[in-house]
Amino acid sequence: MLGAIEAGGTKFVCAIGDEQGNIHERAVFPTTAPEETMAHVIDFFRPHNVEAIGIGSFGPVDLRPDSPTYGYITSTPKQAWRNFDFVGAIKQHFPVPIGFDTDVNAAALGEQRWGAARGLDSCLYMTVGTGIGVGAIVEGRLLHGLLHPEMGHMLVRRHPDDTFAGVCPYHGDCLEGMASGPAIERRWGKKGAELADRHEVWELEAFYLAQAITNYILILSPKKVITGGGVMKQTHVLPLVRRHVQELLGGYIQHEAILEKIDEYIVLPGLGDNAGVAGALALAARAIE
Amino acid sequence: MLGAIEAGGTKFVCAIGDEQGNIHERAVFPTTAPEETMAHVIDFFRPHNVEAIGIGSFGPVDLRPDSPTYGYITSTPKQAWRNFDFVGAIKQHFPVPIGFDTDVNAAALGEQRWGAARGLDSCLYMTVGTGIGVGAIVEGRLLHGLLHPEMGHMLVRRHPDDTFAGVCPYHGDCLEGMASGPAIERRWGKKGAELADRHEVWELEAFYLAQAITNYILILSPKKVITGGGVMKQTHVLPLVRRHVQELLGGYIQHEAILEKIDEYIVLPGLGDNAGVAGALALAARAIE
Ligand SMILES: Nc1ncnc2c1ncn2[C@@H]1O[C@H](COP(=O)(O)OP(=O)(O)O)[C@@H](O)[C@H]1O
Ligand SMILES: Nc1ncnc2c1ncn2[C@@H]1O[C@H](COP(=O)(O)OP(=O)(O)O)[C@@H](O)[C@H]1O
Ligand SMILES: [Zn+2]
Ligand SMILES: [Zn+2]
Repeated sequence: MLGAIEAGGTKFVCAIGDEQGNIHERAVFPTTAPEETMAHVIDFFRPHNVEAIGIGSFGPVDLRPDSPTYGYITSTPKQAWRNFDFVGAIKQHFPVPIGFDTDVNAAALGEQRWGAARGLDSCLYMTVGTGIGVGAIVEGRLLHGLLHPEMGHMLVRRHPDDTFAGVCPYHGDCLEGMASGPAIERRWGKKGAELADRHEVWELEAFYLAQAITNYILILSPKKVITGGGVMKQTHVLPLVRRHVQELLGGYIQHEAILEKIDEYIVLPGLGDNAGVAGALALAARAIE
Repeated sequence: MLGAIEAGGTKFVCAIGDEQGNIHERAVFPTTAPEETMAHVIDFFRPHNVEAIGIGSFGPVDLRPDSPTYGYITSTPKQAWRNFDFVGAIKQHFPVPIGFDTDVNAAALGEQRWGAARGLDSCLYMTVGTGIGVGAIVEGRLLHGLLHPEMGHMLVRRHPDDTFAGVCPYHGDCLEGMASGPAIERRWGKKGAELADRHEVWELEAFYLAQAITNYILILSPKKVITGGGVMKQTHVLPLVRRHVQELLGGYIQHEAILEKIDEYIVLPGLGDNAGVAGALALAARAIE
C-alpha cells in the first residue's frame, strides 16, 4: 500500500492507494496549525503499513535534493507553516521513501498517469481556486528549475474597463491577483458560486485566464492543458477561455490541437477533484522505483 | 570532424568543429533562395569528411521525429523557405546522422555545454534581433512539446505612454511586435545602432524585455537567463532589464540568484556570437551518441 497527501491551504486530503492510482481509503482534514493538522495525518496513516508516502504540497516548497531545507514549506504567507519541515515530520513517524513536490506538479503527474493527459509526455495542470497554481510535465519530467515554477503570478494585461487593484500581496494585479477565487469575491462583492448568472463576471475571468494559458502555450508548448480548482466549477468559463486563447494566438501556432480541436486540448481534469491526491500516490510510487 | 549550421533569417553560419565545441573552419552565407544558399552550404561541407551535421534553424520547424514533415521549415513568413525539407536536403549529399532543432534551442545547448550556463541542467537563451526567439533547457533537456516554444510572441503589457501599434503580422503588439530590432526601427524612425544615446529608447526596450523575462522566470524557473542578438549589443540595456525584473518580481521569488546576484543570473552569451553555431556542433555530437 502507498500513502498520499495532498496538502492544500484550506484542507489536507490523505489517501491509501496503490500503484495503479486506485484509492482505497480517503480522509480530509482542515489546514489549521501544523501540529494539529499533522496529528490527524499521522493518525490516518498509522494503522496502514505504507511502503512509501507521496506529498503534493502548497508552497513555496524546497525541492532541491541537496538543500539543507529540502522538504520544507518555505516562505508561505501562512505564518504557522513557514519553514515547516514537512518531509521530516512525516519521516519521523514513517521511515519509508517519501516523494515530495508541489500540489500542482502532483496533480499534473496524476492527470498524466491516469487522467486527461494519459500517454502524453507533456501537460499542464492549472488550478484556479484560493490561489492560482500551475504544474507541468515537459519532456516527460516534472518541471523544476532554480526553484519550482510560480506561474500563477505571471503578468497579465489589464482589461481596459477593469479598475480593480488586484489581491496579490506581492504584485497586486498579477494573474492570481486578478483572477483567483478571492479576486472574484473582492471585485464583485460576492463569492464566485453566487455569481453564476452574471455573464460579465465570467467574460472577465476568461479574459485573464486565456492570457495566462496563451503565454503558457507560447512558452511551454504543452500537449494538453488541464484546468481545475473551485472557480472552474463554473463550467461555462472554459468555452470562453478556449475562444479567447484562439483569438490571442491569432493562428500563429499551426497545430490542429489549437486550430481545430481546442475542446480536447484545454480541458477539465480527467480525475475530477482527485487529480492531486492521485498524483501524490504516483509520487509515492516513484519514490520506491 | 563534425559539421554545424546555424540557419538564420538573414545569414547562414556554417562550421567544421569537434565534440569539444572547437571551431576549426567557419563561413557565412546570406539567406537568399534555398537552392542558392544550400549550394553554398553543400560546397562548404563537401571537402570535409563530417561524421554528423547539426542544424539550428530559424522556424517554425517540424521537430516531431514521427512526422512526415520532420526536418522541414514549415509556416515561415519567408515564402521561399516555406515547407523546405532542410534535413532531407542535407542528407541527400551527406548520408550521416543529422541533429536538428531551432536556432535558439541550439544556442541554449551551446551555452549550456561551453558558455554561460556550463554545468547547469536548466537555462534559457533569448535572442533579440530581427525577431525575438527563445530556446530553453529544462530538467537537462531541450524543451519541446506540442511543437517547439514560440516565446518571442508572448503577450506583454503595453507601456502607458507607448502608442506604437507593433510590427508582428500575427499579433501586432506581442513582445516581438514591440521590442524586436525592426520594432525599434519602426517606432523611432532609425535603426537601433543609431539610437545608442537616446535613453528613452532603451528604457522602453528594457520595459518590454523585462516583462518577458519575468514571465519566463515564473513559468520555467531557469537557472540562467542568457540574452543575445543584435539589439543586446546595446550593453546598457541589460542592467535596466535586470532592475525591472527585480521590481516586477517584487521579492516573490526568494532566491539569491534574483535577489542578490542578478548580474550573474541575467547575462550576455558566454560564447558571444558563436552560441548558435557551437550549439549546432553539440547537436551533431548528440546525433552520433
Ligand atoms: N462553484 C464555484 N464557483 C465559483 N467559484 C468557486 C466555486 N467553488 C469554489 N469557488 C471559489 O474557489 C476558491 C476555493 O478554491 P478551491 O479550489 O475549492 O480550494 P483551494 O484553492 O483552497 O484548495 C474560493 O475562492 C471559492 O469562492
Ligand atoms: N548595435 C546594435 N544596436 C541596436 N540594434 C542593433 C545593433 N545591431 C543590430 N541591431 C538590430 O538587430 C537586428 C538584427 O539582429 P541580429 O541578431 O543581428 O540578426 P538576426 O536576428 O537577423 O539573426 C536589426 O533589427 C538591427 O537593427
Ligand atoms: Zn502575484
Ligand atoms: Zn507575435
